Amino acid sequence: MSEKNLLEKIDNPQSLKQLPVGQLPQVVAELRQYIIGTLAVHPGHLASSLGTVELAVALHYVFNTPDDKLIWDVGHQAYAHKILTGRYNEFQTIRTKGGLSGFPKMSESPYDAFGTGHSSTSISAALGMAIASELQGNTTRQHIAIIGDGSMTGGEAFEALNNAGVSKSNVLVILNDNGISIDRSVGGLSKHLVRITASPRYNRFKEAVWRGLGGESEPKKGMEFFRKLLFLVKTTLIKESNLFESLGFRYFGPIDGHDVEELVKTLSRLRDIKGPRLLHIVTKKGKGLREAEENPVQYHAPGLFDAETGKQISSKGTNTLLRYQEVFGKTIIELAGQNDKIVGITPAMPTGCSLNMMMEQMPDRAFDVGIAEQHAVTLAAGMASQGMVPFCNIYSSFMQRAYDQVIHDVALQRLNVVMCLDRGGLVGEDGATHHGVFDLAYMRPIPNLTICAPMDEHELRNMMYTAQLPDQGPFVIRYPRGKVEHADWHNTFEAVEVGKGRCLREGSDVAIVAIGQPSNDALKAAEMLQQEGVSAAVYDMRFLKPLDTALLDSIAARGFKRVVTVEDGVKKGGLGSAVVEYFALKDYKTDIRILGIPDEFAEHASVAELKQLYGIDAQGIAKATF
Amino acid sequence: MSEKNLLEKIDNPQSLKQLPVGQLPQVVAELRQYIIGTLAVHPGHLASSLGTVELAVALHYVFNTPDDKLIWDVGHQAYAHKILTGRYNEFQTIRTKGGLSGFPKMSESPYDAFGTGHSSTSISAALGMAIASELQGNTTRQHIAIIGDGSMTGGEAFEALNNAGVSKSNVLVILNDNGISIDRSVGGLSKHLVRITASPRYNRFKEAVWRGLGGESEPKKGMEFFRKLLFLVKTTLIKESNLFESLGFRYFGPIDGHDVEELVKTLSRLRDIKGPRLLHIVTKKGKGLREAEENPVQYHAPGLFDAETGKQISSKGTNTLLRYQEVFGKTIIELAGQNDKIVGITPAMPTGCSLNMMMEQMPDRAFDVGIAEQHAVTLAAGMASQGMVPFCNIYSSFMQRAYDQVIHDVALQRLNVVMCLDRGGLVGEDGATHHGVFDLAYMRPIPNLTICAPMDEHELRNMMYTAQLPDQGPFVIRYPRGKVEHADWHNTFEAVEVGKGRCLREGSDVAIVAIGQPSNDALKAAEMLQQEGVSAAVYDMRFLKPLDTALLDSIAARGFKRVVTVEDGVKKGGLGSAVVEYFALKDYKTDIRILGIPDEFAEHASVAELKQLYGIDAQGIAKATF
Repeated sequence: MSEKNLLEKIDNPQSLKQLPVGQLPQVVAELRQYIIGTLAVHPGHLASSLGTVELAVALHYVFNTPDDKLIWDVGHQAYAHKILTGRYNEFQTIRTKGGLSGFPKMSESPYDAFGTGHSSTSISAALGMAIASELQGNTTRQHIAIIGDGSMTGGEAFEALNNAGVSKSNVLVILNDNGISIDRSVGGLSKHLVRITASPRYNRFKEAVWRGLGGESEPKKGMEFFRKLLFLVKTTLIKESNLFESLGFRYFGPIDGHDVEELVKTLSRLRDIKGPRLLHIVTKKGKGLREAEENPVQYHAPGLFDAETGKQISSKGTNTLLRYQEVFGKTIIELAGQNDKIVGITPAMPTGCSLNMMMEQMPDRAFDVGIAEQHAVTLAAGMASQGMVPFCNIYSSFMQRAYDQVIHDVALQRLNVVMCLDRGGLVGEDGATHHGVFDLAYMRPIPNLTICAPMDEHELRNMMYTAQLPDQGPFVIRYPRGKVEHADWHNTFEAVEVGKGRCLREGSDVAIVAIGQPSNDALKAAEMLQQEGVSAAVYDMRFLKPLDTALLDSIAARGFKRVVTVEDGVKKGGLGSAVVEYFALKDYKTDIRILGIPDEFAEHASVAELKQLYGIDAQGIAKATF
Repeated sequence: MSEKNLLEKIDNPQSLKQLPVGQLPQVVAELRQYIIGTLAVHPGHLASSLGTVELAVALHYVFNTPDDKLIWDVGHQAYAHKILTGRYNEFQTIRTKGGLSGFPKMSESPYDAFGTGHSSTSISAALGMAIASELQGNTTRQHIAIIGDGSMTGGEAFEALNNAGVSKSNVLVILNDNGISIDRSVGGLSKHLVRITASPRYNRFKEAVWRGLGGESEPKKGMEFFRKLLFLVKTTLIKESNLFESLGFRYFGPIDGHDVEELVKTLSRLRDIKGPRLLHIVTKKGKGLREAEENPVQYHAPGLFDAETGKQISSKGTNTLLRYQEVFGKTIIELAGQNDKIVGITPAMPTGCSLNMMMEQMPDRAFDVGIAEQHAVTLAAGMASQGMVPFCNIYSSFMQRAYDQVIHDVALQRLNVVMCLDRGGLVGEDGATHHGVFDLAYMRPIPNLTICAPMDEHELRNMMYTAQLPDQGPFVIRYPRGKVEHADWHNTFEAVEVGKGRCLREGSDVAIVAIGQPSNDALKAAEMLQQEGVSAAVYDMRFLKPLDTALLDSIAARGFKRVVTVEDGVKKGGLGSAVVEYFALKDYKTDIRILGIPDEFAEHASVAELKQLYGIDAQGIAKATF
């Protein structure tokens, strides 16, 4: 009985603070079990949250939340924080329609000081809050960014460190170093952290020298050569002996992030120090569930699993279709085998986008560059300038991070970079921060781009094949998350004529003009309409740009009672806009309805629920035709 | 005679290489005079280019360009490079229509290995090229990024260092450290560089310790305490005693960037070392022209000046109007005086956007955060989450860098951040990389934003006033570069009704629907049309979002023969799209023509030339109405 007793009684951090420090390990254990037990049946981000249980407990124990501000970078590690802050009972609703968000969200709780989802924003936000507190005359409030070593490679984190390091602001950065973002962390910073943490003597040595030499005071006259040298060591090297100190932060650590009592002690000390500080803690992603500790990549978001054994429960039974991601992964290897100019690039999502397959088979030609979308795109442009054909795979919503690089480095120079936008359209449970619904609208204004979206995996393969043919220029291929359409995914490559749409189904009363995955729903809508005696033609535009204006001319000439455009992106600026712009230019007077995501942020829910909500499922499409 | 002899004969780097090293100082002197003499009468980026004359000479002297790749970050320091690579005679055409670009441009010369304009891209591009060379079996080609200390604060540069530092790629980064970006460099990195360069003994000391202790070998047994300590120093601290070494780069320098012979010697040595290297050179921005050395900010792009004395030649004579930038600078101070929640933020453009005025008068409330657009926006969001009203001023084309932060941190959380997009629309001579023509199209799809564009400085002031009223949510104000419309800029603040356009001029035959500065051209077009007996109504929409649909309803109801929309942004996705989308929704059958920038990158030319080219000057607008 006693195991569950403590956690159930913690309605908020005030109750947590009532406990003696000695009971915190029990809270930690209960929390971990509760997370494991819940996520086993309500899938979510498991391994990250298991790694930060002690930290969440210690932070709420030491600091005065919600007045003190906690900002969880990315935020999929914040489950323990959610449970401790009054969301224990709702926790099983996580990531479902109307339930808790999988990420911190200001509108969900006053304890969620700042919404996250994309990486590397937390230090900037914490600094902004700290400056606000100063201006408001509050000198005691704490502003704490909790950021992983993976997120620390994102450029914005560095921009923020650079700015915060010279401020006197009350910012505490907690670097949660587990060597993992979603896949293994990569890059110079990661190796730097390994070197720091691998030598336990390093920090003890630094402190010893510093203290042994009398702190800041000048060395005594007449001291021998070595003492002078050591004074130099002290005043130059030690003061900046790691990257964070170089930028002006006081560095503390590394300490064990799974020793909750040690964490409480350290955080209490740090609370009383002013200015920008960084505490380096070392944790294990997946801590407390053996399978997750051993396979943190696989257990980042494992789906259903057995809470006792940790074993994943296969959901393959009913649906053996591959995912679009897997088709991408297999296809780029196939193409790279035929064309030695092809290389693959991913910013820290090799498993998610399946480039890991190519990284294994062709390690010289496939690159994980870390959480670094901006760099990924310009790197691709640099390669393309030398005749290579890089496939740069970035999740649609993360490509927002590299918007300038797409314009300035790729499109303006008309370089042959193939930008594969994975998870285009609605993504479901990850919610507002992750839906890939802006891409068609933000890419379309950029000159020189070819923009296409396949309606199935055969088209995806053909578009990838087409994109790597000579002199195609910048090519955007946008495809959804999840299962493909056909059991036999492996068609023979066939070039797609760039800018050419197609008629999927003839009809005479109304026309449905779609792009990408929604073309399938358009076909279903046409079948429903047929039941009601309405003859609907269905067109798959395939290319948003160049737009198939000849096809649109022919559609306009057919005299349909109505044309309905359908896309799984925002209505403003996407396919619908392109069609009405063209019809206006040609003075076509056809009735047009634009279907897509309205002018609001779509929340978390299943893709099917969201499609229904926005009227872009088959039923909604059918309804819009009359 | 002899002074000019050398430079005139240098058609390309091959001829430069024929000279003995001893003659390079003369080439340097000639180059500097030629740049000063030319820019005195053909305005351009002066001070940056004066600082890199020795570097450009040394690089082309040592390396095998264009096979070896030089990438000039930002690129406004590349004038000497342009002159040395076959563009001596054309140099006076710089930044004019049909003439040389002010930035490196691949299509202009094979020596321009990669186009630049925005900062912090060079290391990514160089690494991409280096990887391409490796894959192509070329092990000798050099890939050199030349980047200023200001650009080094941009997040993308860090992402690239992090990736390159663990590669074995043949990348040489030359850090051109002058303590200045366009304004003074700020932040932790800048201070770090000062500390490195300020202690000349630092590097000598490091080398001495390293060598004195016998390089990599183990210390002898029986050594006394200090030698053991120093061994630790050697193996831990010295190996990573600055930020670049932390990330895996071999660090060289700092050396004097104005000693061309020393540069040649050092670069020759570095050429033969493999892997990622960074050479830190110290230069003086504006070197060789006293005025520019003393006022590098003012002489970044000084306009016309006297080549002998260096004195700027005032162009105020004919036009004493303020610039929009100055009105912004004065207005934010005025508003901040009334509302203590207001703060100002600029990413490294305090002089350009005039936030420097507020930084002087209210230093606690105005922030230059360095070249860091992403951080600037999230920082503003952090402040706004605590009740402040930050005005975040970012050049329109640079806001492309913070697109994700606008969506994810500001809009999604509906925070009261006022995003002032300076240099919206065509900017003229800076050309393709700098035109602010995408903003309306890329901002419009984002939910929760209010987006407006003033047609004159009174509207700018009123919109700024309106934006800081309580609970306005995220507010985008987009205004042009250059002179305002009225001599009396200082109107009394008046709230603008959000989402409300206005009729500027009644008319009955045709309607011109404009937004922002082009509303003035629309009025002129209406006058021209009147001469020809056509009665044109003119509407200033003011808000792109929310769109004044009531006004559009009334326009549709008026039965105009044609409605022409005008904007100084791309046609795809902006105001024109918004209007045709709405007309489609309402089944209005009015003839509509969309005027704006077509689907191509606008090149450099004067704003007037570009407006004429794209038919968005008064004449072009008038013509489009029939």
